[in-house]
Amino acid sequence: MIVPRLIERKRDGQALDPGELRELVLAYAEGQVPDYQMAALLMAVYFRGLDRTEMNALTSAMLDSGRRLDLSRIALPRIDKHSTGGVGDKVSIVLAPLIACLGVAVPMMSGRGLGHTGGTVDKLESIPGFRTALSLDEAERQIRKVGCAMLSQTNEIVPADRKLYALRDATATVEVIPLIASSIMSKKIAESLTGLVLDIKRGSGAFLPELEDELALAAAMIDLGAQHECPVVALLTAMDRPLGWACGNALEIAECVEILTGGGPADLLEVTLALGAEMLQLGAVCSTAAAARQMMSAAIASGRAMRKLEEIIVAQGGDKRVLSDPSRLPQASHRATFAAARDGIVQAVEPRAVGYGVIELGGGRRNMEDKVDPSVGYIVTAKPGDRVVRGQPLATIYARSAGDLGNGARALEQAIVIGDGSPEPLPLVSHRVTAHGVEVIA
Amino acid sequence: MIVPRLIERKRDGQALDPGELRELVLAYAEGQVPDYQMAALLMAVYFRGLDRTEMNALTSAMLDSGRRLDLSRIALPRIDKHSTGGVGDKVSIVLAPLIACLGVAVPMMSGRGLGHTGGTVDKLESIPGFRTALSLDEAERQIRKVGCAMLSQTNEIVPADRKLYALRDATATVEVIPLIASSIMSKKIAESLTGLVLDIKRGSGAFLPELEDELALAAAMIDLGAQHECPVVALLTAMDRPLGWACGNALEIAECVEILTGGGPADLLEVTLALGAEMLQLGAVCSTAAAARQMMSAAIASGRAMRKLEEIIVAQGGDKRVLSDPSRLPQASHRATFAAARDGIVQAVEPRAVGYGVIELGGGRRNMEDKVDPSVGYIVTAKPGDRVVRGQPLATIYARSAGDLGNGARALEQAIVIGDGSPEPLPLVSHRVTAHGVEVIA
Repeated sequence: MIVPRLIERKRDGQALDPGELRELVLAYAEGQVPDYQMAALLMAVYFRGLDRTEMNALTSAMLDSGRRLDLSRIALPRIDKHSTGGVGDKVSIVLAPLIACLGVAVPMMSGRGLGHTGGTVDKLESIPGFRTALSLDEAERQIRKVGCAMLSQTNEIVPADRKLYALRDATATVEVIPLIASSIMSKKIAESLTGLVLDIKRGSGAFLPELEDELALAAAMIDLGAQHECPVVALLTAMDRPLGWACGNALEIAECVEILTGGGPADLLEVTLALGAEMLQLGAVCSTAAAARQMMSAAIASGRAMRKLEEIIVAQGGDKRVLSDPSRLPQASHRATFAAARDGIVQAVEPRAVGYGVIELGGGRRNMEDKVDPSVGYIVTAKPGDRVVRGQPLATIYARSAGDLGNGARALEQAIVIGDGSPEPLPLVSHRVTAHGVEVIA
Repeated sequence: MIVPRLIERKRDGQALDPGELRELVLAYAEGQVPDYQMAALLMAVYFRGLDRTEMNALTSAMLDSGRRLDLSRIALPRIDKHSTGGVGDKVSIVLAPLIACLGVAVPMMSGRGLGHTGGTVDKLESIPGFRTALSLDEAERQIRKVGCAMLSQTNEIVPADRKLYALRDATATVEVIPLIASSIMSKKIAESLTGLVLDIKRGSGAFLPELEDELALAAAMIDLGAQHECPVVALLTAMDRPLGWACGNALEIAECVEILTGGGPADLLEVTLALGAEMLQLGAVCSTAAAARQMMSAAIASGRAMRKLEEIIVAQGGDKRVLSDPSRLPQASHRATFAAARDGIVQAVEPRAVGYGVIELGGGRRNMEDKVDPSVGYIVTAKPGDRVVRGQPLATIYARSAGDLGNGARALEQAIVIGDGSPEPLPLVSHRVTAHGVEVIA
C-alpha cells in the first residue's frame, strides 16, 4: 500500500479497492499512517464521495478496529435509537426505559454535546452519581440484568472512529454523507443490534439542512445496516425549533421525568412515541404502530417505564430520588423570565441560537476540555405559530449570575422572532424511510 | 484565525483573505499549524484553485518565511533560468558560465533529482570536490567576485516551501498549478533577481504533459514575477525525448564541457542558446536575439565561457582539471553498446523510461536517502526520426556490474521504439510566453 498513490486515485475520482481501504483504516487506527495523509484523503472523499462498496469496506474496517458488545446470550431483540442531534432532544432518556420495560434490550451508546447540540451523556451526568463510562463488560452485565445500559462511547468500540472523527472536526471534513453514515453505523453495529431506528433531524438546527442530504444519509445507513443483518428504519423529524421546552442538561432530565409521569410537552411525547413504535415493531413486540403506541401509553400510565428508568439509574450509580424530587437535580442560582417584546405571532425559535445560548450560559462546550454546568439553560415554552401579547412570558432563563441572565436573554432575543406572518414550521415527523423506500408522512 | 473555518471556506469555493493566508503559511512554517490541517487545505486547493490575489499572498508569505540573497551591492543585472525538469537537461551548467561571462550576474539555486528527472546539484557534485551547499553569505561573496554561484537550495531561503513541498509529495497534491508557480517563484524572487527565464518542458517526459497546463503555469509565474519587479519570459521546449545525448551525472558534465569546446549535441546547444538569448535580453546586454546568439557563440569559440566555468569550479572547491581531462570524472567500470534490434525508423526515445533506467543503474534516487553513483548512465545518440539499420549502435550503457548492464539494456528496450512510421517529435522550442502574451514559434 503506497498511501500517496491511494490518495491520488481517490483525488482523480477512481474507487479504492475494499482491501486497500481496509488496510489503510486499520493502519491509521494503529498510528502507522500519519494524520496528514488521512486528512488529504478525507478532503478528496469530500469532493469525490465513496461508492457503496467503499463505504461498506470503511465501515467493516472501523468495526474491526475494536471490540463489539457481546449480547449473544440475550434472547431478547436488541434495538437502539440514534439521532443526528438537535437542541432539546432528550428522546433517548425517555425512550430507553420505555422500550426496555416492554421486552426489548436497549444497548444505548451515546455522545456528548457537539456544536450547538446537547448530548445524552452530558444530560445523564446531571443526575448525581450517574456513571456513563461503563466498560463493555459492565454494559453487557447490566443489559442482561436490567435490559438497558446508557453508556458513553468507549475506546474499546471502534477506536478508528474516534481518531477519524477528531481529525474530521479539525479539517472541515465532517459534512460528508458516507463518512457520517459509516461513523454512526460502525458504532451501532458494534452494539450487536438486531434493529436500529434513526431520528434524522431536518431544518435550520440540523447538521444536514437539505432534505436531499437527509434522505441520502438515511439510504446509506439503511444499506450499511442491511449488509450487517441490522434492519434500519429512519424517521425524519423537525429541528427547525427546539424539541420540547427544556434546553440544558438538568432541565432536560426534569422534562423526561415529566413525560414519564404523563405530562410534559406534546411534541417531545409525539416524537418519542413515533420512534418507539418503530423500535417495538423492529423488535417484533408489536405488529402495528397503533398497538405499539397503546403499549407505550400503558407503560407510562402504569409507572412501569418510570420504574425501569429508576432501575437503570440505580444500576449506574445515580441518585434515584431525582425522579420523585427533581429539585435534587443541580439548580441554577439565578432565574429570570423572558417576555414577548411585542404583540404578534411567534415566527421562529431558532435552535442554533438557543443551543449556542446554552453554551454561553456554561451548559455546553466550546472546546472538548470545557467543563459543563448541568444546572443552566432555558425552558422555552413558545413555539412557532403561537399568538403572543407583549409582556407574555415565552421562556425562563437559568444562569449562574445576573450577568449571565443578561447574556442568556440576548441569545433568546436572537432566537425568538415575533412578527405578523403565519409561519409554516416543518411537520414533526415528515418522512419514514425503510429498505423499501421513502414514505411521506406529512 | 480558526483553521478549520479557513479550510471550510476554501473547500466551499470561497477565496481566502490575503492576510489570513499569510498568517496561516507563516504559522505553518513555524510549526504552529499541524500538517494535517495544511494537508486538508492543499487538497481543497487542488479542487478549488487559488485566484491571483491568493497566489500572490501565498508567494509573499513563503518568501517572508526566510531570508533572501542580498545582491543589492551588485550593479549588474541578475538573471536566473529555471527548468520544470527533464531527462538529460544539463542546460544550467552550460548557461550559467556562458551568461556570467557576458556581464550578467547568475545566482543559480538548483535542486536534486526528482522522480524520473535528474538534478543540477547531483550533476555538479560529480566534479571531485565541488561543493554546492553554500551559505547565503558565501553565495553573495562568490557572485560579487565571480558573477555566478551554483548552489543547492538552502534552508535559509523559503523554509516554508521545503516543508510544504514534502507535505505535497506525501499527500498527492504536487500537480497543482498555483502551488507549483508559488513554490518556484518564491525561491526565485528570494534570489533577488532582475529577471527570470523559464524553461517549461512539454511532452511525455514533462511533469505537466498538457499544453494548456504549461501555458497556465507560465502565465501564473509571469504574473507573480510582475508583482515582485522580476520580469519573466518562458520558453516551452520539447521533453518527448531526452535533451542531448548524455543521461547520468558525470556523463552530463562531460557533455557540457563538449558544448563549451564547440562540440556536443545540436539540440542541447540550441535550447541553451534560445534560453541564453532571453537572459541576455532581459539583462539588457543585447536588444535582439540575433545579437545575443552572436555574443554567446563568440564566448564559446574564444574559450571565455569555459574559463568562467573553471572560475566557478575553483570558487566552489572543485577539481578544474576535469575540464581539460574529462577522464578525471568518475568512470563506470562496465560499458556496453546498445544496438538496434531491427531496421527502421526511431519512433520514440521515451524520457521517463530512460530516466528510470538511470535510477535503476544507481544514478538517481528512489528515496531521499539514496546515495547517487555519479559514474553510471547512458549516452543515447538515437533521436526520434533517425533511420537505423539492425546492429547499429544507438546508445552506450555505463554501469557498475555486468548484471546492471543487462538491466540497463532492458530499460533502453522499453525506451527506444523502432518502427516504420514517420514520427512527429515536438518542436525543440515551440512557444514563447511573456507578459504580452503567447507567441507560437514552431
